[in-house]
Amino acid sequence: MNIDDIDTPAILIDLDVVEANLSRAQSYANDHGIALRPHVKTHRLPLFAKRQVELGAQGINCQKLGEAEVMADAGLTDILVTFNIIGAAKLDRLAALHSRIQIAVVADNVPVIDGYAARFTDPDHPLDVMVECDTGAERNGVQSGEQALDLARRITAAPGLRFAGLLTYPPSNPKATGAWLAQAKQIIEADGIAVPKLSSGGSPTLYSAHESGGIDEHRAGTYIYSDRMQVAAGLGTLADCALSVLLTVVSRPTDTRATLDGGSKALAADVCAAPGHGHIIEYPDAILTKLSEEHAVVDVSACDSKPMIGARVRVIPNHVCVVVNLFDKVHLMRGDTVEQVLDVAARGKSN
Amino acid sequence: MNIDDIDTPAILIDLDVVEANLSRAQSYANDHGIALRPHVKTHRLPLFAKRQVELGAQGINCQKLGEAEVMADAGLTDILVTFNIIGAAKLDRLAALHSRIQIAVVADNVPVIDGYAARFTDPDHPLDVMVECDTGAERNGVQSGEQALDLARRITAAPGLRFAGLLTYPPSNPKATGAWLAQAKQIIEADGIAVPKLSSGGSPTLYSAHESGGIDEHRAGTYIYSDRMQVAAGLGTLADCALSVLLTVVSRPTDTRATLDGGSKALAADVCAAPGHGHIIEYPDAILTKLSEEHAVVDVSACDSKPMIGARVRVIPNHVCVVVNLFDKVHLMRGDTVEQVLDVAARGKSN
Repeated sequence: MNIDDIDTPAILIDLDVVEANLSRAQSYANDHGIALRPHVKTHRLPLFAKRQVELGAQGINCQKLGEAEVMADAGLTDILVTFNIIGAAKLDRLAALHSRIQIAVVADNVPVIDGYAARFTDPDHPLDVMVECDTGAERNGVQSGEQALDLARRITAAPGLRFAGLLTYPPSNPKATGAWLAQAKQIIEADGIAVPKLSSGGSPTLYSAHESGGIDEHRAGTYIYSDRMQVAAGLGTLADCALSVLLTVVSRPTDTRATLDGGSKALAADVCAAPGHGHIIEYPDAILTKLSEEHAVVDVSACDSKPMIGARVRVIPNHVCVVVNLFDKVHLMRGDTVEQVLDVAARGKSN
Repeated sequence: MNIDDIDTPAILIDLDVVEANLSRAQSYANDHGIALRPHVKTHRLPLFAKRQVELGAQGINCQKLGEAEVMADAGLTDILVTFNIIGAAKLDRLAALHSRIQIAVVADNVPVIDGYAARFTDPDHPLDVMVECDTGAERNGVQSGEQALDLARRITAAPGLRFAGLLTYPPSNPKATGAWLAQAKQIIEADGIAVPKLSSGGSPTLYSAHESGGIDEHRAGTYIYSDRMQVAAGLGTLADCALSVLLTVVSRPTDTRATLDGGSKALAADVCAAPGHGHIIEYPDAILTKLSEEHAVVDVSACDSKPMIGARVRVIPNHVCVVVNLFDKVHLMRGDTVEQVLDVAARGKSN
C-alpha cells in the first residue's frame, strides 16, 4: 500500500522522524541523568509507548485512567497518571490497575488524598501518590512548599499510601521550576519526610530540563511527533514534525483561494504563534486562514505555483495531540510506503 | 440509571429540549413553505435523523460520505451530501449509495463535475448534482451567476447527471443570499435550464430563511442542540441548549480558581463571542478561562458560592458539533434519568 492508495482525510506518521525524535530525547535524558517518562496522550498508541520504554524510558505517563487501562492491557507495566482521581467508579478502576501494574497518581488537595486513603489501605502494597505543585502555570497544584508539606504529611500518615515526590506541569521555565521544587523539597525533608522524586514536564522544556538542577524525571508527550506549536516554541524545525494530515484540494473558488477536505474535525481549532491553522508541506507559502468543520480555507496568493483541484497535500497541524484524538486510525509511513495502519487504541479515552 | 451514576467527562442530552427545538424548527418551515433538511453533522445519530424526518424534514444533509453511509445503513433514504466528491475511492462509495437510496451531491468546479460525469452514465438513473454558490461567505462556491450557468450546462450535458438546483452555505444574510441565488436562477433559466431548487443553510439564519424570498429548502444542523455560539448569534437562549458536558471539579488551587476534568479533548478549543470556553449551568458567573487537553481552568471569583472539589457541573460548550465528534457515547436524559446511552454512530466519519 502506497500513499496514493490512502483516502483523505488521513493521518500519516513518518516512522523515521519518530525514531529520530525518540532517540534524541532519550539520549538527552541519558546524558543528563534525568529519567524520561513519555506522555502517551500525544500518540495514544501502545506500539510507540513500548518503543519508548525499549529505548530507555522510565515507564509512561497517562493523563486519564482510560488511557492507562489501554496501555496496561497492551503490556505497559509502569504508569504514572498525572490527574486527581475522584469518585468511587474511578477509584475502583484505579484499584484494578494497582492490582496488576506499578501505578502512581497525583494529588493537589485534601479531598483527593482522603479518597485515595479510604480506598487504598494495604501497607504491604501502598499506592504511590505524588503532590502536584503549581510552579507558575496557574492550572492545578499546591501554591507553596508549606501546602506541599501538609499534603505530604497526610499521604505519609495514610497506611495504604506512599509519598512518591513532587510534580509540576506545565513548568514556567526550568530554572524557576527547579528552584520552586527544591525549596518545597527542603521544607518537606526538614519535617523528616523523604522526597523520592522531583518530576517536571513538557516538550517545549524537554531539552532544557537539566537547567532546573535537581530534577529527577521529565515527562513529555508532543516531542514524539512535534507540531507547529512546538516549532514556534523553539523545539526543532518543521522537518522534525513526524505527523501530517493528508488532505485533498476540493475547490479553487478564486485565483487566490483553495479549500481542503479537512477542517476543525481533522485539524482542530487550536491556534499557535505561527499564522493560520497548519503548514502545508507542498505549499509552504500558503496560509490556512479559516477552518469550518470539514473545510480548510487556504490563501494561496503567496504561492508561486498554485494547487490544482484534486491535488493532495500534507498539513502539519498546530497541535498534534488533539488531532490524533480526532482520528480512528493512523498510517505509519516509511517514505511513501504504508508500513501499517493502526487503530488509535486510546482515542477518546478521556474518562 | 441516574445522572449520579454517570462518570465524567460525559455528554448529556436533554430529550425534552431536543424535541422542542426540532418541533419549533419544523413548524417554522411548514408555516413558511420551506423544506427543512436537517444536517446530521451535529448529532451524528440515526435516532435523531429519523425523528427529524418523522417530524416532516425533507430528507437529511450530510457533509461527508462516511456520515451518509452510516445514515443509509440506519434506514435514511433521502440524503444530500454537500461536498465536492473527488477521487475513485469516494466515487465508488457514492455509486454504492446511489444504487440504494436517493442521494444528491454538489459541485462548484469543472473537475468535480467531470469526475461525476465519468462515473455516473445511466440516463435512467441519473445522479442529482447541485451547484454550490459563494454568496459572500468566501468558502466554496462559484463566484457569479455566469459561473453557475456554466456548471449547470455541463451537468445538463452529462447523460448520467441531473442538474438539481443551486445551494449555498454559509449564507451572508437571508436577503443578500436570496438576491444572489434569484439572479443566478434567472441567468440559468434564461438559458433554458430549469432550476428545480434553491437551498440555503445555517442554524443562525434558520428562522429568517423566509426573508430570502424564494428559498425552497433550508439546511441546518446545530439547531437540534444549540450552543453558546448560537445563543451569541441570537438564536434562542441558554435554556434552548440541549447538550451539556458533565464534568467534575478536581481541584481548587486558589480561592478564585477551580479546575474541571475536561479540556480541549472534551470541550474543543473553538471560541465564540461569549467569554471563555463554555457556560457552567450551576455557576453562571464562572468563566472557563483556559483549556489544556484534559483540564479546564475556571475563574470562580465572580461566583457567590464557589464549587467544592468533587462537585459535578454541566458545561454548555461553545460549539456543539465538534464536541459531539470527540465522544464515543451520549447520554439521553429525561430530567435526571438516563433513558438511553447511545454510541455516536457517525463519530469521526469525516472521510
